Amino acid sequence: MSHMTTRRHLLRGAAATAALTMTSAAGTGTAQAAKPAQAAPPTPAAAGTMLDIGILLYDGYSLLDPTGPAEVLSRLPGATVTMVAQKRGPVRTDTRDVAVMAERSIADVDHLDVLLVPGAGNRGTVAAMENQELLRWIRRIDRHSQWTTSVCTGSLVLAAVGLLKGRRATTYWASAEYLRTHYDVTYLPERYVRSGKIITAAGVSAGLDMALYLASLIAGDDTAKAVQLAIEYDPRPPFDAGDAAKADPELKQRALRLLAESQEQEVAPKSRRG
Amino acid sequence: MSHMTTRRHLLRGAAATAALTMTSAAGTGTAQAAKPAQAAPPTPAAAGTMLDIGILLYDGYSLLDPTGPAEVLSRLPGATVTMVAQKRGPVRTDTRDVAVMAERSIADVDHLDVLLVPGAGNRGTVAAMENQELLRWIRRIDRHSQWTTSVCTGSLVLAAVGLLKGRRATTYWASAEYLRTHYDVTYLPERYVRSGKIITAAGVSAGLDMALYLASLIAGDDTAKAVQLAIEYDPRPPFDAGDAAKADPELKQRALRLLAESQEQEVAPKSRRG
Repeated sequence: MSHMTTRRHLLRGAAATAALTMTSAAGTGTAQAAKPAQAAPPTPAAAGTMLDIGILLYDGYSLLDPTGPAEVLSRLPGATVTMVAQKRGPVRTDTRDVAVMAERSIADVDHLDVLLVPGAGNRGTVAAMENQELLRWIRRIDRHSQWTTSVCTGSLVLAAVGLLKGRRATTYWASAEYLRTHYDVTYLPERYVRSGKIITAAGVSAGLDMALYLASLIAGDDTAKAVQLAIEYDPRPPFDAGDAAKADPELKQRALRLLAESQEQEVAPKSRRG
Repeated sequence: MSHMTTRRHLLRGAAATAALTMTSAAGTGTAQAAKPAQAAPPTPAAAGTMLDIGILLYDGYSLLDPTGPAEVLSRLPGATVTMVAQKRGPVRTDTRDVAVMAERSIADVDHLDVLLVPGAGNRGTVAAMENQELLRWIRRIDRHSQWTTSVCTGSLVLAAVGLLKGRRATTYWASAEYLRTHYDVTYLPERYVRSGKIITAAGVSAGLDMALYLASLIAGDDTAKAVQLAIEYDPRPPFDAGDAAKADPELKQRALRLLAESQEQEVAPKSRRG
């Protein structure tokens, strides 16, 4: 029916109709048939090789830390993003409001091309830093990964593993002092910091910027830019309040209170549903 | 142990230690005991009244659409964010990579203070627009909501419900033409557009900006700014490629191809795990 036909095109800008018609015609056919006419740079991912990206979930992570990068990285050609946790099943965020499914357990995963360790609230981060099974798994995966990455306090977990020794790194603004004073790490107040194959991102939303940078390293600038447009990432927050270096002490206190209070439910009846 | 004590403070900037010690001392006590010394504006949320925020998940949504706003809104004082779907259980994204748990079914939810409808890939959006049970539920919830909102092609779902009639609204850049030509809507190429109690956001990542704006409407500018700092939202993408108005046709084609190809797995064996 023409009504349906029209609706099938609701995501198609006029400029892209031809290209997408081609893609659509390929339908359930091979990946090759649906390849773009102008191929991306001949990287492993663009060449159709699977790129195994694993994101570690652990109790009390902050929701955007894994999901922002997952949104970006799952758009890369040939990439699969898998949520991994100590046990399969739903893993609950720091506020206890939301649970994302872990599709695989760490026992089932012995290789990843890309590992991402998200950050968490205070309790979740501390628990992860002291979870020897988790730390051993991260160390094992890092041995053969192409990229080992973190968002927010995930860098503290990487530090606890020993992976940041002698490196430059970043972390959540309120954890910078801890990272700097407890580990042999040069803290940089950047959105993301690359040191060899390790990339650390600043707090929560910085995972988006880091993932686009990582996308460019994996699949080239043109593909990364296309992902950025695909997720319409032209950020324009209503306020200019996200940079801790420019924040006054009162705003910092208020931010940390909101975090602490939104996480209070950890010990309330709502907890441990996951 | 002093080691543990130190670690418990790893998220605490020096400036905020006093305030957080207070919060921490309140422990599992009442919400009142943990209130900040300088209270936020006397809005319903800040006054400790629960604010029921529901995010509708439906098959094939884009991961960041619900999770970005959930990260922001779950930090508001007194707010609870619940993922809602036609049926309880895991609901899978457009790429099939990730599933977020729906904690409640639409049959169990007859009131929300805030409703958010995320966007989806082409197939998911079309299916939602034709799902009469879903549309009826949205209409019913909207009747008594304080705010009815959408991200990305979620605005097409709101339009299908009839909620955008005669209104200004925004949507995903590649869906703008469809929204403009199929509904009585004035499309605006903004990050978010408010029309009465309805707020629509542009594509995927625009949900973050919209949620911060909504946070300011609900809890005041100071609280919204604190949330922005809490999630360190000081965006600095490595490229300036997220604005469709500035993108050349080739980049647009590439973006839409990436989207289409990352969603091809919908019909592959990996599908329907949720």
